[in-house]
Formats: sequence, C-alpha cells, structure tokens
Amino acid sequence: MTVPVRYELLKRCSHTLARRGVVHTPHGSIQTPVFMPVGTQATVKTLSPFELREMGAGIILSNTYHLHLRPGEDLVAEAGGLHGFMHWDGAILTDSGGFQVFSLADLRKITDEGVQFRSHIDGSPRFFSPESVMAIENQLGADIIMAFDECPPYPASRDYLETSLRRTLDWAKRCKQAHGRPDEQALFGIVQGGAELDLRKAAAEALVEMDFPGYAVGGLSVGEPKPVMYDVLAFTTPLLPADKPRYLMGVGSPDDLFEGVERGIDMFDCVLPTRIARNGTVLTSRGKLVLKNAQYARDFSPLDEDCSCMVCRSFTRAYLRHLLKAGEVLGIRLTSYHNVWFLLRVMEGIRKAIENDQFLAYKREFYDRFGYNDDTAVQTSTAGEDVSD
Amino acid sequence: MTVPVRYELLKRCSHTLARRGVVHTPHGSIQTPVFMPVGTQATVKTLSPFELREMGAGIILSNTYHLHLRPGEDLVAEAGGLHGFMHWDGAILTDSGGFQVFSLADLRKITDEGVQFRSHIDGSPRFFSPESVMAIENQLGADIIMAFDECPPYPASRDYLETSLRRTLDWAKRCKQAHGRPDEQALFGIVQGGAELDLRKAAAEALVEMDFPGYAVGGLSVGEPKPVMYDVLAFTTPLLPADKPRYLMGVGSPDDLFEGVERGIDMFDCVLPTRIARNGTVLTSRGKLVLKNAQYARDFSPLDEDCSCMVCRSFTRAYLRHLLKAGEVLGIRLTSYHNVWFLLRVMEGIRKAIENDQFLAYKREFYDRFGYNDDTAVQTSTAGEDVSD
Repeated sequence: MTVPVRYELLKRCSHTLARRGVVHTPHGSIQTPVFMPVGTQATVKTLSPFELREMGAGIILSNTYHLHLRPGEDLVAEAGGLHGFMHWDGAILTDSGGFQVFSLADLRKITDEGVQFRSHIDGSPRFFSPESVMAIENQLGADIIMAFDECPPYPASRDYLETSLRRTLDWAKRCKQAHGRPDEQALFGIVQGGAELDLRKAAAEALVEMDFPGYAVGGLSVGEPKPVMYDVLAFTTPLLPADKPRYLMGVGSPDDLFEGVERGIDMFDCVLPTRIARNGTVLTSRGKLVLKNAQYARDFSPLDEDCSCMVCRSFTRAYLRHLLKAGEVLGIRLTSYHNVWFLLRVMEGIRKAIENDQFLAYKREFYDRFGYNDDTAVQTSTAGEDVSD
Repeated sequence: MTVPVRYELLKRCSHTLARRGVVHTPHGSIQTPVFMPVGTQATVKTLSPFELREMGAGIILSNTYHLHLRPGEDLVAEAGGLHGFMHWDGAILTDSGGFQVFSLADLRKITDEGVQFRSHIDGSPRFFSPESVMAIENQLGADIIMAFDECPPYPASRDYLETSLRRTLDWAKRCKQAHGRPDEQALFGIVQGGAELDLRKAAAEALVEMDFPGYAVGGLSVGEPKPVMYDVLAFTTPLLPADKPRYLMGVGSPDDLFEGVERGIDMFDCVLPTRIARNGTVLTSRGKLVLKNAQYARDFSPLDEDCSCMVCRSFTRAYLRHLLKAGEVLGIRLTSYHNVWFLLRVMEGIRKAIENDQFLAYKREFYDRFGYNDDTAVQTSTAGEDVSD
C-alpha cells in the first residue's frame, strides 16, 4: 500500500522539542512547522486561491460538517473533489466535523453509534458516525482526513472524559476500518483526554497502536488556561511517533504557535487571522492593532512597517480604517490578507530559526517586539478568544 | 491656462454618431467610448485597485456625497487626494453629490442658494451649494469633477423642470467661478431638462456658452421608458461640441451602452455590474444568468464560455453558486470581477468595431447573442432597475 502522506525530519532544535521537517502529500510537499489557513466552506474567507498561493500557503483546512450540509459531498465529488471544486492545487486537510457537531449543531444526541443532530442551517436531522464521516471525507477528497472524534468541553468531569475518550478511541478504530481511500488520503488519529494526563497517555498509546500516518492533539484551546494547554501538549507530543506529523488542532495565536512548535508540533490551523481581520484587528510585528480605534483615522502609515505584504506595500491604516467603517468588502479582504500573510511569515521565521538552531532566540525576539513580554500586552493576548469555526 | 483634460477624436462611424477617441487626463489617456466602474466610497465594491488595473480599467468614478460624509474631504486631501488615498494611479471622476442629495439624503430643502439635507449615516445637518461642492471636489482631487446640479425625477411637470433647470444652469456658472484648481481638474457641465427637448436644447446652449472642458447628459435612466431616453440622447448630443468629451451619467446596462455610443456618447458609469453581481446575477455573452437558480447547482461550466477573465478561466458556476448561497465574500468578489470585466470587454469590442467602421454589425451580433433581439429576453433586460448608487 502506498502511504499518501509521509513525514521527513530535517532538523531538530537542540534545546526544545521543536523540529523542522517536510510533510509530503499528493498535492505538494509542505515545509513544517506550518500554519494552515481555514477554508470552512471551501474558501478561506474573503481570499482567493491565487492569493493563498501568492502568500505561500501550501496547505489549507476545510470543514466536513459545513461542506456536508452545503453544498454536500456528492456535489463536491462530482466537481473533482475539493481541489477541483475550489480551484486549489495545494494540499487540503478536512476535519471530521466532530468539533462542529458539538459546538454548532442543535439537539445533538451522542451514542456509541454516533451523533444525531440538526443542521444549524435548516434544522434538518442528520447523523454522523465514524462510517458516515469517512464516506463524506472520502468524497471530499482531501489529502489528509481526520478521524471522527468527540471534543469534550473544558472543564469536564473525569467521568465525562473517560466515557468520551473510550468512544473516541472506538470511533478511531472504526474510522480506520471504514476509510475507503487509504492509498490517496492519509487518515490522522486524534488524541483526546482533556486535561487529564493519564487519559492523554492512554489515548496516545491506543492510537499509536492503531498505526495512523499522522496524529493530532485535539481538545485544546477550548477554554482552558494557557499553562494547562502548554503542559498537556508538552506531556503528549513525546508520546507520538517521531516519524509521523503532529498536528495541534484549532490553534493559531502567535504565542500558541511558538509554544506549540516548542513542544514538538508540526501543523496548526486556526480561524483567528481571518476572523479577527473581519472585526478590524490586525497582527503586526509590534502587537495587535484595532483598526477602528480613532487614533488611526489619520494614520497614513502601513499596518506594519516591517511587513512586505501587498497590503502593507500599498495601503494606509487610514484607508483601511475608512473601508472597515464604511462596511466595504475590500477592507476585510485586505485585513484578512495581511493577517494570513503575517502568520505564514511567522512560521517561515520559525522554520528558518530551527534550521539555524536559533528557535528560542527567535521566539524571545518575537515576543519582545510583539509585546508578549510586557505585562500590559499579555492582557490583550488572544487567550480565551472564540476561534471555534 | 493648461487644460487638464482634452478630447482627441480618432475616428467617426459612417452610419451613426458613434465615435472613437481618447480623453487625455493627468492620470493617463483613456480610450473612448469608455465604461467607468463606480467606486462610491473610494473602492469599487469588493475589488482591489490591482484588479481594476489588471482588467484594463483606466478611469473610475467616486461619489462626492459619500466621501464628504465619510471619511471627509479633509482626510482624503491629507492622504494625497483620492488617488493616494485609495492607491489608484489611473484617472478618477467625482460626481457632484447632486444625485445622492436628491435620492439618499433626508429632509432636504432646496433653495437657489443650495440644498440643506441630513446625512443618511448619522442624520447630521449638511448644506451643499455650488461653492461648497467645488471646495469638496477640489480637495478630493479627481481628474474630472462634475458641476453641482439638480437631477429631476421622472416624470416631472414642465414647471418643475423649468425651475430646476434655471437653478442648475445658475449653479453651473457658480461652480465654474468657484472651481479652485482649473489647471489640474476638469470641470464638466451637466445638461438637464428631463424629457423636454426644448429645455435640453436651452441647457446645452447655455452650458456650451459657459465653455466647459467636457459635458455630461444627466437626468436619464431615472425611470423613463428606454425609447424616451434614447430620443432625448439622440437630440442632445449633437448640441454638444465635437471637440469635447460627452458623458452619459449613471448608465451601464449593455444595451444602453450600445445605444449611448450610437448617439455620440464617450463616457459611461454605472453601479450595475457590481450591484447585480452582489445579488448573484452575471452578464454573459449569452445574456444574464441568475446564479442562485437551482439549475446551476451542478453546472461545472464557466460563467461564460466566451470569456477569458480570471473567474471564467478558474471557477465553475456550481462553485460560485455555492459561495453565494453560503454568503461567502469570495462569491461576490468573483461575480463582481467578472461583470466589470465583461462590460470593459464590451466597450473594447465597441471601440474596435468603430475603428473598423463595423459598429452596427458588432451591435447586431452582440444583441443577437445576448438575447436583446429576442422578445423574451427584452423582458429581462436591465431597464428600470435601480442603479442609483
């Protein structure tokens, strides 16, 4: 059997678990650590695939739950799969819909068999099981597909977490069996277990035993304090095989990217850059900037003096603020472009730093500039923001 | 005194008033007949200036009323004028706000002095006079600026039209006197007079007497039947000097472009392509297409087989329909791009046809393909659509 996705290790950091590698996929080789922009409904909000390519994005994420509801996996398959449908020839990862079923859908009922829920669009009754989700993801045709899991809330009782994990591990096994295109699509297992380290350990061991071509750490950045998240991560990643990619789901604030890489993570995704952009918040090398603030009304400097993106080369804060205040689409297009570009450049910097074995020095420098090492700035960090879809 | 805008005649049609020329402006020479995309709030909705350039747009229109209210002409001037503010180095025309004051603003009160109204954004009281509008347009810094006029509704009584025209002509004179940058910005006069041909004649003669560097025909496409509009136009344009550009305001459905060119018009502007695009309607060489219709759900062909725009080369009707149904910004970006591209190519075709003295043959061919020569298609033409801002 051909393995559709393979991890190649290029270099390890001498001081941390950070590692520099390549994830080879049927749609290109992805330099890692990597940030994957999120294209929930087969489009990274406001951006075109040409722009994503121009920014250097190699892989994007799309959502099984949303695509199942609209336009439906049959239609996407008819269009030649997600790649053909959205005209994106880079790599794609689809999540399993587990997270959305538990956060967006109505009237859900979980059993060992699967989850009954109602569409958040039209209220129609639906049922997701490991088998049905695999069939959907097989039709969507992404390069990497995720096992159907339950993502428990934080906090959750020990009891809840145990039951949930037992189910998630059972579902992982059933996903592996039901996966219809293992030669073309790599199925990743997801380690759950909440903040309980022994459950995380059991989950990792069970999944490694099942032998997936890649592993995700799920159930983090769901409301727990950052130190808890970082500890769970530090504990969990060393339990995963070194020759497989490791993906931290739903995480993408700049500090979390650094902390994740430091703890051995190769892949990240998050709606943060596009979501905060639509709200008028941009990431800059000197911290976050809330464009709608009056102080930028007559500020004719670029969003970020140190950024060389199309937006920063061409437009001023005053113009972008005007567009946002006037409700013009170009405003959120440009802030989205800049924010995604910014995170991709952060990851590029991280990759270069690991190559030169300067990861911690680069992190220190970034934190100093961004303001993470200020007491005041920490208060405005992205912790606790809702970045769930 | 330097004349900032100059019309150069290249070729006349042997059978109609259609003419091929160039309008030389401080920001480039515009091949005419030309369609000017509308950038109401200093952005052509959903599109970037790079895209407009890539499509071959040489001149765009922006709205004095909207920019005065937000962000204000002082701020735009500080940014280096509209060109600098929106990062557009092509030509720009600003309207006078007359149309918007009469169609958007609340509680307006017209006197010979000017118009008192309330902002549609925050209800604040404002006053537009020929002098204040000139000051605003001078600060905005467009290449072509329009005189402050009253655009009467259709139908309007003879009395109303006479009073209104007297005022508009008086305002035109005052605009000319108040214009502070005649070496840098060309002030165009606007012929009003409703559907009364003798008033149109009086208006044209009075304005020509005042000697403007260009003339617009205003007050058309405001609800009158198309034959009335075409007759008024046929009557009016020959009254305007042949060595000056002629601009038909607010008109841009494909048939109106052909009919306008046929009657001697050089310049057009209209929100139609971008407005109908946001509603999911696209222009194709075979007529209009309402993308949200169920028949396109699994239609994997491009919007227009005969179009070579970025959208038609890359995306299917099914994908675009999905984006629109899902409320994704990329959907209206792409339909807007295609529609503006389409009208720019129509004008390119018209220019080439006039060069080859084939205007009527090209018109016939276009109408046949688009469906304007079908009885059924005429019913779905753009006549009477609200294309007012």
